[in-house]
Amino acid sequence: MASAVMAGAVGVSSFTEFSGLAAAPAFRPSMPAFSTRPAAVRKALTIEAAWEPIRREIATPRRDSVKVKAATQAIEDEQMVSERPSSLLREGEDVQWNNPSTSSMRARFETMIRKAQDDICAAVEAVDGAKFREDAWIRPGGGGGISRVLQDGNVWEKAGVNVSVVYGSMPPEAYRAATGGTSANGGATNKAGRIPFFAAGVSSVMHPKNPMAPTVHFNYRYFETDAPQGVEGAPRAWWFGGGTDLTPSYVFEEDVKHFHQTQKEACDKHDPEFYPKYKKWCDDYFLIKHRGERRGLGGIFFDDLNDREAEKILAFSTECANAVIPAYIPLIEKRKDMPFTEQQKAWQQLRRGRYVEFNLVYDRGTTFGLKTGGRIESILMSLPLTARWEYDHTPEEGSEEWKLLDACKNPKEWAA
Amino acid sequence: MASAVMAGAVGVSSFTEFSGLAAAPAFRPSMPAFSTRPAAVRKALTIEAAWEPIRREIATPRRDSVKVKAATQAIEDEQMVSERPSSLLREGEDVQWNNPSTSSMRARFETMIRKAQDDICAAVEAVDGAKFREDAWIRPGGGGGISRVLQDGNVWEKAGVNVSVVYGSMPPEAYRAATGGTSANGGATNKAGRIPFFAAGVSSVMHPKNPMAPTVHFNYRYFETDAPQGVEGAPRAWWFGGGTDLTPSYVFEEDVKHFHQTQKEACDKHDPEFYPKYKKWCDDYFLIKHRGERRGLGGIFFDDLNDREAEKILAFSTECANAVIPAYIPLIEKRKDMPFTEQQKAWQQLRRGRYVEFNLVYDRGTTFGLKTGGRIESILMSLPLTARWEYDHTPEEGSEEWKLLDACKNPKEWAA
Repeated sequence: MASAVMAGAVGVSSFTEFSGLAAAPAFRPSMPAFSTRPAAVRKALTIEAAWEPIRREIATPRRDSVKVKAATQAIEDEQMVSERPSSLLREGEDVQWNNPSTSSMRARFETMIRKAQDDICAAVEAVDGAKFREDAWIRPGGGGGISRVLQDGNVWEKAGVNVSVVYGSMPPEAYRAATGGTSANGGATNKAGRIPFFAAGVSSVMHPKNPMAPTVHFNYRYFETDAPQGVEGAPRAWWFGGGTDLTPSYVFEEDVKHFHQTQKEACDKHDPEFYPKYKKWCDDYFLIKHRGERRGLGGIFFDDLNDREAEKILAFSTECANAVIPAYIPLIEKRKDMPFTEQQKAWQQLRRGRYVEFNLVYDRGTTFGLKTGGRIESILMSLPLTARWEYDHTPEEGSEEWKLLDACKNPKEWAA
Repeated sequence: MASAVMAGAVGVSSFTEFSGLAAAPAFRPSMPAFSTRPAAVRKALTIEAAWEPIRREIATPRRDSVKVKAATQAIEDEQMVSERPSSLLREGEDVQWNNPSTSSMRARFETMIRKAQDDICAAVEAVDGAKFREDAWIRPGGGGGISRVLQDGNVWEKAGVNVSVVYGSMPPEAYRAATGGTSANGGATNKAGRIPFFAAGVSSVMHPKNPMAPTVHFNYRYFETDAPQGVEGAPRAWWFGGGTDLTPSYVFEEDVKHFHQTQKEACDKHDPEFYPKYKKWCDDYFLIKHRGERRGLGGIFFDDLNDREAEKILAFSTECANAVIPAYIPLIEKRKDMPFTEQQKAWQQLRRGRYVEFNLVYDRGTTFGLKTGGRIESILMSLPLTARWEYDHTPEEGSEEWKLLDACKNPKEWAA
């Protein structure tokens, strides 16, 4: 399911069409590529309209056990495999549908995210000394995943890096909602069946032990919808999404600046408008609304990106994924052995509690994954090993804890 | 807000009509009293139809900051007071609207829940040795709350007992949905404004330190809707809800039996059908759907109760609230000083993680409270002080941990 490849979640769901619900959450279509609609309209359609019927369905849990059974069935549908497959794609999908002599975007994206997983896990193992455990699975209908977890290591309390490839199908209503009912094939899809989609992504959360060392999350994902079933020549939609963000318990300005600066430089190589736009999007997305504070100090976040050649966005996504190690690992190296007090550890645990609140209450990937029968252990890998909730904890004004909270409430500009 | 008085949450929200959202969640009207509709129809209307527009609205977070501001504003709207008020009702509402010579149900319910709060806090303090901290607040528009928390005590890690009284108003669409558009005043409400409601409740979660000692949750609540604004003689709706449930980390059969037996005896005094029905409702409600397991071993849970005189249901609710101490405190006395291993403590922490998952993902009171601007610290008082998430933890078959999990997956009959 979409959880695997959506922000925040480190999970994968099984998208085997057991119900309309199963497919719906993965469906976050933007307009077909190179849409000429104004950005604002496109955004409204993609974010609000396209989600609306999905949200509504998901937000209305039935009191009977149907969904529970479906979820269980979906989970059982995954087959754990002892060795990771060389490709998680369906056979023959490593080439372009319209040009079989070239590699498909699906294949190139899978290659990219698997390399990112390998590189980042190697970098983490080199610092930690402990090794990731790997779980791989496939689904009979196509797709699969590779979860890697390093739990209770020397440096990290819990680090998870997941790759997943999901095949599913979405109901035509959702497709129509996405296209505003005005696309060229709007009439056709009324008669057409469900629309197959493809989603692939790498997703990771890493929580270190030392409260001076920050948590990082990143996720890069690619979606495609096939032509609606039974409709010849209908347009295919595709889009990219992703982001990398930092969640420290204590603010070391130089660290946060380095992190943001590295993201900015990766963005600037592709479009000078990217960093300011995606930095703000990140600040908006990771808001814990009920507290009026962000879970951390942000980074970049983008979604529905298809306003230029896919090739260019793949290059941008690759750049971002490659920026994770240089942005994050140096901070860990600097902070992992710093001395700290019990009070500082308790503050880190409180911030971990906030992380749990964001992920379970707001994060799209997590909440949809949980409600639609994903692989729970992969989805909830994003949660910290330990967390804490104290009643009415308020840091003293001017304290280091207060400074962090202030930065979470009032996002700052960190990059030069 | 409804959170205060709904299952699971220990919270109170401010229901000061800052938006349709604010009022909606508290609105869980059943049919007017003594409805002649079959129970199944009534249930469908109350649970599904009445919630639908509310869920839809809440499930569609807007990307702008309006709600955040509204929530903040609502929270600020509470005024902390140094002494708890003698009544949280609006002036003059201590008498029946249609018979001013007698005490109103509002007043009698407030008396009941405040006595329950006092009695239970006294019993907990007697066992723990530490004292509850008390926070009281009122709202300019009427209503208020008294939160009591005992954190990091000798026996309990975190124990919260809240009382709250909320005045709000719901949009007419929600009222119509509840009555299926066919009630006598269906037409009238089309022209009418928002429908005022009243909600009061006591709510508590108590997490002990020793992993052999169980967590308990209870919540008893009463709702009323006024006549729709501007509509003379329209029916008022009212209903009661509540429940008490046990969440151990280890199964001591005699403890669970004692707990359920005490609930059953309280129920049986009022209706022999209550216990079996509300025991099952409890098992259904506290299901962590994505895991196919309950958060604990149940107890009783009921809602929308108005099928007999309010007087009789008040007596039943009082009986249930009075049963909390005899059902729970003896278990704590027996288990609080038992020896335990680090592994057993870690298992308790994992179960606390499940508690967090249920409350943040599914519990109605909590999720609505968080999304509509409640008093966050009161709502999240239900979360444990500490919790833990391990990747893919599976207890060995036949182990004590496995027995607990099995009982959470396959509810048993515990009462004789």
